Amino acid sequence: MTAPWITYRPELKVLDCTIRDGGLVNNHKFPDEFVRAVYQANVEAGIDYMEIGYKASKKMFPQDEFGPWKHCDDDDVRRIVGENDTPLKLCAMADAGKSDWATDILHKDDSVLNMIRVAFYAHQVSEAVDMINDSADKGYEVSANLMAVSTNTEQEVNQVLEEVAKTTAGVLVVVDSFGSLYAEQIEILVKKYLECGKSDGKEVGIHAHNNQQLAFANTIESIIHGANRVDASMLGLGRGAGNCPMELLIGFLRNPKFKIRPVYQVIEEQLLPLSRQVEWGPYVQYNITGQLNQHPRTAIAARAGEERDSYTEFYDKLTSDV
Amino acid sequence: MTAPWITYRPELKVLDCTIRDGGLVNNHKFPDEFVRAVYQANVEAGIDYMEIGYKASKKMFPQDEFGPWKHCDDDDVRRIVGENDTPLKLCAMADAGKSDWATDILHKDDSVLNMIRVAFYAHQVSEAVDMINDSADKGYEVSANLMAVSTNTEQEVNQVLEEVAKTTAGVLVVVDSFGSLYAEQIEILVKKYLECGKSDGKEVGIHAHNNQQLAFANTIESIIHGANRVDASMLGLGRGAGNCPMELLIGFLRNPKFKIRPVYQVIEEQLLPLSRQVEWGPYVQYNITGQLNQHPRTAIAARAGEERDSYTEFYDKLTSDV
Repeated sequence: MTAPWITYRPELKVLDCTIRDGGLVNNHKFPDEFVRAVYQANVEAGIDYMEIGYKASKKMFPQDEFGPWKHCDDDDVRRIVGENDTPLKLCAMADAGKSDWATDILHKDDSVLNMIRVAFYAHQVSEAVDMINDSADKGYEVSANLMAVSTNTEQEVNQVLEEVAKTTAGVLVVVDSFGSLYAEQIEILVKKYLECGKSDGKEVGIHAHNNQQLAFANTIESIIHGANRVDASMLGLGRGAGNCPMELLIGFLRNPKFKIRPVYQVIEEQLLPLSRQVEWGPYVQYNITGQLNQHPRTAIAARAGEERDSYTEFYDKLTSDV
Repeated sequence: MTAPWITYRPELKVLDCTIRDGGLVNNHKFPDEFVRAVYQANVEAGIDYMEIGYKASKKMFPQDEFGPWKHCDDDDVRRIVGENDTPLKLCAMADAGKSDWATDILHKDDSVLNMIRVAFYAHQVSEAVDMINDSADKGYEVSANLMAVSTNTEQEVNQVLEEVAKTTAGVLVVVDSFGSLYAEQIEILVKKYLECGKSDGKEVGIHAHNNQQLAFANTIESIIHGANRVDASMLGLGRGAGNCPMELLIGFLRNPKFKIRPVYQVIEEQLLPLSRQVEWGPYVQYNITGQLNQHPRTAIAARAGEERDSYTEFYDKLTSDV
């Protein structure tokens, strides 16, 4: 019996967002050796892209409050990767409204980064288009990441895609920021994004959150329907409930170029110790905000406070009519 | 936009296996108040069935080593539920080769149980058929649970289903004992079981394990393809990686008869304290046995020992050629 899950698509590429998304739990204050270990693991595991952080505004996110991976200055990146003489490509994320992208993103010739991922909410699409064009003009691969798509109407999504389709962004990413989407919704969105990008061969990506323990399953679902760019992070590290766990994704993918042992190794040596200092994962409060299609900020606050075990009270608060 | 995930099928019924499967982590030594709290939560949440334990042989599983929910004597069950004057139906599981079913399962008229679930491996199908017929003759609803189906060839599954189809078992359950199945495999099995049972209207069920964080997703997948009997447990309590979490399942189902608040309440009051004494959940060792389609016993042993954090060593051990 041959079947999709025992073969592979060579064009499917994996992006590790451990440092970028994971940095949201510790203000991107990772020790260099942590970042270097993740980088090495990615190289050894055959991962295609590593998102090493944000290109965030230093005015809005001062350097004395945030670690270097909030800004990804090239000197900092080079301290970890040198000239990155490996097949692993590096990328950084720039948020609309939170990035001095015109000045802070250098020309590709002066940077060790390969790709810029532009993250934006639907109402920010005009700035996003400018950002995409700017990064493309500077020589980068570019992806367009419409965040929190679960909160947009179908008309809003259509109009955003119409604008983004005109750009040279090579990738459109389905982003389930709140971890609220079910498989059937993922299927609809992936097909819609593929349709929108097909005229110039844009690839579709998936960035899933694990609020309902569906990040891995929804990533598989996206792959089934044609997504070729998939995000994951080591031990699922990420804000709140976390992301699709790399160790599950690589165990599923059948391309022999991917090696899982380096993933287990970096988890054991770096992620496990980190998990004793900071918390992430699909705790009940994240289940609840996911089911309610809400931003996880209330859940993050609840988990950090004395009421961390008061699930019923949290549910009552979020569903009360007052 | 109307779609399946925002409507519901009235015939879909939920079974809580918290005590039965969860008892595998503590030899079924639950205090009465724990079992009573789960029972009450099930009644209040509108759950359809509660599996309160096993009908296991007292010779093989002595009463001084195992709690009462390993045997489910009617006196013990009645101590919790009285005459169970509620819409919640009660069931117990009997394992082929491990149950003195002929004598220990009373006639339905003398029992407060409503259903017997017969669990068996493929090679035990002949005893399973006898057990199914015995329980049906005694007046119970009966389900046939072929365990570890992920380890059987298609021919084995077909032959088992052929035998079981001839019985009056009302339900055929797809059991992913090792938590190794992906959505596409679940779809194939659910369709096969439905086809096998359609001549006399047997329902198909799903019992998923969470080794790869797919228990909830695979349960949804089964529902999409027609499974109407779905298993879950509070906070996913169950052996090893645990089961499909009830709190996620009830959040997904749209039948207004299901109430989620009592589920959060029993989790907060009973499961959370238990989780500080015993461990379950999709830890990396369970990811690995799931990916390798192996029984979780090596993972359970590793988590209980000093090497609980040695993921790479565990992976090496399970994949070495010697």
